[in-house]
Amino acid sequence: MTVTYVESPTPSFLFDLDGTLIDSVYQHVIAWRAALSDIGIDLSVWRIHRRIGMSGGLFVSALLRETGRSLSKADIDQLQQAHATQYRAQMDSVTPLPGSRELLGFLTGAGVPWAIATSGYAATARPALGLLGLPEETPMVTRDLVRHAKPDPDLFLAAAALLEIEPRHAFVVGDSVWDLLAARRAGALGVGLMSGGYGREELERAGAYRVYADPAEMLARIDELGVRADELGVRRSLEVLGDGAFTRE
Amino acid sequence: MTVTYVESPTPSFLFDLDGTLIDSVYQHVIAWRAALSDIGIDLSVWRIHRRIGMSGGLFVSALLRETGRSLSKADIDQLQQAHATQYRAQMDSVTPLPGSRELLGFLTGAGVPWAIATSGYAATARPALGLLGLPEETPMVTRDLVRHAKPDPDLFLAAAALLEIEPRHAFVVGDSVWDLLAARRAGALGVGLMSGGYGREELERAGAYRVYADPAEMLARIDELGVRADELGVRRSLEVLGDGAFTRE
Repeated sequence: MTVTYVESPTPSFLFDLDGTLIDSVYQHVIAWRAALSDIGIDLSVWRIHRRIGMSGGLFVSALLRETGRSLSKADIDQLQQAHATQYRAQMDSVTPLPGSRELLGFLTGAGVPWAIATSGYAATARPALGLLGLPEETPMVTRDLVRHAKPDPDLFLAAAALLEIEPRHAFVVGDSVWDLLAARRAGALGVGLMSGGYGREELERAGAYRVYADPAEMLARIDELGVRADELGVRRSLEVLGDGAFTRE
Repeated sequence: MTVTYVESPTPSFLFDLDGTLIDSVYQHVIAWRAALSDIGIDLSVWRIHRRIGMSGGLFVSALLRETGRSLSKADIDQLQQAHATQYRAQMDSVTPLPGSRELLGFLTGAGVPWAIATSGYAATARPALGLLGLPEETPMVTRDLVRHAKPDPDLFLAAAALLEIEPRHAFVVGDSVWDLLAARRAGALGVGLMSGGYGREELERAGAYRVYADPAEMLARIDELGVRADELGVRRSLEVLGDGAFTRE
């Protein structure tokens, strides 16, 4: 007896940026803390950390709800400006996460489509391309390009559209529960990375299909995600890795 | 029929400091990151966060094991000095966590013994007493006073000795898995606070009897820990709270 069925294609990957590809979450946390403190809002730092990765608007609304304060549209704009300024002041200490260049290089070499989808604005997010050794034309969706940010699915839906793939054939890779919730609303599976400072259990409970420490561990276990080393020109990409083109400097 | 049994006494409380009573974990993380980077060790920030609260020596050993490097005793001393300098530079942004003054004031008013037991050295830790509005003679055990820090039980055993109580009649209150592991080795029950940035599930899995958001929530649910409002002069302490003596400024 033979069974005929439609095989699922090799998945594509939609990556969050902060805490997933670059080690920038704690700098964002400290920048938000300083920006909020400037306008007299003193919030515990862990509460800010737990909101990082949400859309800036939802982030501020959620924090205000916790403090019982309200801010005008102008105040919120000023807050986001102050955060951007504070973050830029610390950007020198931001580095790629272990394995992120290698992972992206591996996928490129294997012909697996991937894109970046971040809640950050282009002004703060685009410099990360240089940090990751990626060309300017890397498929990337920033906050400016969509109506709602995470946990709404817009960023990942737009990134999938950019790659001309269906979200249900993509893995969303992110470090926060907001990425994983947005993944589910986009109809994609989520992969959690612990490199943004969330615990494994939080990510699992938000629906992660798998949780890894960081991009390096995800690359080492990429076969668990349906990318096979014996197909798709992966041998070629391993050769590329071998010549140092994608290894860390 | 009557049953005779030995009632357990009202528990005492042994508090961790950073991330438990004061909001200083992220400043410590950033300070360690800068100190390590100065000597050429680039570690992902979340890995440093997950080690905070361990003894400085174990902390450095664990991080070195992850990087495969080794350091001389002199290098480690220099690293701890650099951390202390970097931390002091950010100490202005450290504040008490919500409810910590009120919680300690409540316990004092109720006649419940409590002490502070921290992996930090006296030089970095003692300024926190002023921040919390506590007198210099507050029972406090710092790293300098014991042989091993957390997750060894020494700090909590010493704090219990200072209060002349048995550890099995004390709750250890801390924000990290290291506090909760040290609590178990000391034979005490552990209470986890999420205010250091660890997730609820991590703390529960490390053996927490209860997990609260921060000192404010712990105070609101203090009856769950065997401190009763109708005994022990708690009514008196509520009056004290009422007159503003222990409320946040």
